[in-house]
Amino acid sequence: MKHDSSLLVRALRGEATERPPVWFMRQAGRYLPEYREVRSRVSFLELCHSPELACEVTLQPLRRFGFDAGIIFSDILLPLEAMGADLTFNPGEGPRIHNPVRDRGGIAALKGIDPVVDLPSPLAAITMTDAAAGVPILGFAGAPFTLACYLVQGGGSKNWEIVKTMMWQDPEGFTDLLNKLADVVAAHLQAQVEAGAAAVQMFDTWAGALSSEDFRRFALPAAQRAFRGVKGPTLYFTKDSSPFLPWLAETGASAIGLDWRTDMARARAHLGDIPVQGNLDPIALHAPPEEVAAMTRRVIAAAGQKGHIFNLGHGCIPSTPVEGVQASVDAVKGWSW
Amino acid sequence: MKHDSSLLVRALRGEATERPPVWFMRQAGRYLPEYREVRSRVSFLELCHSPELACEVTLQPLRRFGFDAGIIFSDILLPLEAMGADLTFNPGEGPRIHNPVRDRGGIAALKGIDPVVDLPSPLAAITMTDAAAGVPILGFAGAPFTLACYLVQGGGSKNWEIVKTMMWQDPEGFTDLLNKLADVVAAHLQAQVEAGAAAVQMFDTWAGALSSEDFRRFALPAAQRAFRGVKGPTLYFTKDSSPFLPWLAETGASAIGLDWRTDMARARAHLGDIPVQGNLDPIALHAPPEEVAAMTRRVIAAAGQKGHIFNLGHGCIPSTPVEGVQASVDAVKGWSW
Repeated sequence: MKHDSSLLVRALRGEATERPPVWFMRQAGRYLPEYREVRSRVSFLELCHSPELACEVTLQPLRRFGFDAGIIFSDILLPLEAMGADLTFNPGEGPRIHNPVRDRGGIAALKGIDPVVDLPSPLAAITMTDAAAGVPILGFAGAPFTLACYLVQGGGSKNWEIVKTMMWQDPEGFTDLLNKLADVVAAHLQAQVEAGAAAVQMFDTWAGALSSEDFRRFALPAAQRAFRGVKGPTLYFTKDSSPFLPWLAETGASAIGLDWRTDMARARAHLGDIPVQGNLDPIALHAPPEEVAAMTRRVIAAAGQKGHIFNLGHGCIPSTPVEGVQASVDAVKGWSW
Repeated sequence: MKHDSSLLVRALRGEATERPPVWFMRQAGRYLPEYREVRSRVSFLELCHSPELACEVTLQPLRRFGFDAGIIFSDILLPLEAMGADLTFNPGEGPRIHNPVRDRGGIAALKGIDPVVDLPSPLAAITMTDAAAGVPILGFAGAPFTLACYLVQGGGSKNWEIVKTMMWQDPEGFTDLLNKLADVVAAHLQAQVEAGAAAVQMFDTWAGALSSEDFRRFALPAAQRAFRGVKGPTLYFTKDSSPFLPWLAETGASAIGLDWRTDMARARAHLGDIPVQGNLDPIALHAPPEEVAAMTRRVIAAAGQKGHIFNLGHGCIPSTPVEGVQASVDAVKGWSW
């Protein structure tokens, strides 16, 4: 494989690296002036569906900061669109699905997809970006439970009450939905690997809406099913890692992404030799640069030398200061074990 | 003490009870038609500042469901108003503080308070409600860190970037602010105990915005300082319990409230003999009644007989079904160890 000796792939194999590789979730985004320039010309979905523009915005933070990996610019909801969801992103209101799935009929009507035919844009973008970037490119997808959240609720939600009500009223039907989504996620991730992604990350952003019991009953088996269909290094991230630490080793992922609340030493104790990714508080980038550097070094020291990918514990936000990103990347690159 | 032999106070002492006492966070609220009727006549802040009306809405869920405890109707931001914050609640936008604290001058300008003089409404409401209710009444306050979040940010926030930036830029100044808030919180809680509250709960809703490191550095010492000033049974609740489980035993609270994500057995393992409160998923009340009852019984069984107060893992929401609340309360009351 092309990037076998990269810091990223070595850390994903659990090897000791001279310093951790570094990339940031949502490193391509609104905090960058050059990204805002591109977005002033096209809508969010147009950007996702244009391989040339997706490649361009994926490369922007690599050029500016020298990250050790890029993550392809795309959105976790694109596979739902390909499955039949009527998806829009209107400024200020976030994603909306205008034909949410609310019953077994809706689940049965969802289309399976062949990613090469039905969702070619991210694949073309990955191939193009991998050819242009000197570093590994990551692909990604939403985890089945998180996709089910949007598909059933019809958009973002604080409490996901429609999703959970369906889950408890008809657990068998909801499990069918998760399985259907898991198979699409697996195919989508595997196609990204074949298109040139050096690794793929599954975002289970909303698993933290669940109790530990329901996580084990619904989200975890669905994530496992999706990972079984992928041949290549994989990462699993959920925005709430700590409640599920005793079970995260069972996801089947090559590495576990940790949120910023999670104490690194506790995570290591639970995960054993499984590589970890994270977990600087994303808002820490707002701190004075010398403080950013100190917090960055404390994360590295706590994680240890083996199998650690430095990242934020969640994504960059629109107010993330460019100077904070640079200070953290520089501190990682200046580290030496 | 008046309620010494109540299930609530016995569980707070860590005793084995024949069944757990039950009350729900935000049990008085918009999901109840009788609450909406009162609110149609007065604003939220008028309700908080009227002891008669606060008493009435506190009693409503006790009458309807037979809870084992009431929590006085009030708001965690009232002490900030008494300290000089220009606070408004506008429908649809949540709390706003129009003169947020952004520097040491702002911190120095905050007034200390004598709760009896400066914040009498909740005290009068507690005395009145305790006389009318046949069950213990809980008082409450926001924890110092959570109050600092609103006071510095100026309202609710997804990322609390202004708060955290101040925290890292001027940790000494921020600690001064937390100490000032802790002293107000302690006085406010102690006054509620003296007014007749059988126990008091501190809500550290936003501690989960912090890394474990910053929790230990800022939120935890401030909570400890506040609890040291209270003579009476105390509870500490944060919306994200799991990341901080190894340190929650150090808060100084008599009991720890757990969020719904947290596995009860893990919490017990970390907390030893410290009583716990929780932790049914609040959205579980949307499930069919027999499923609500089954989930309720699983929480009780996992918690064990000693020192457990049954509650939700977070508050009721406007769409909470009255039938779900009744099903859960009935399941608790039907339990027998």
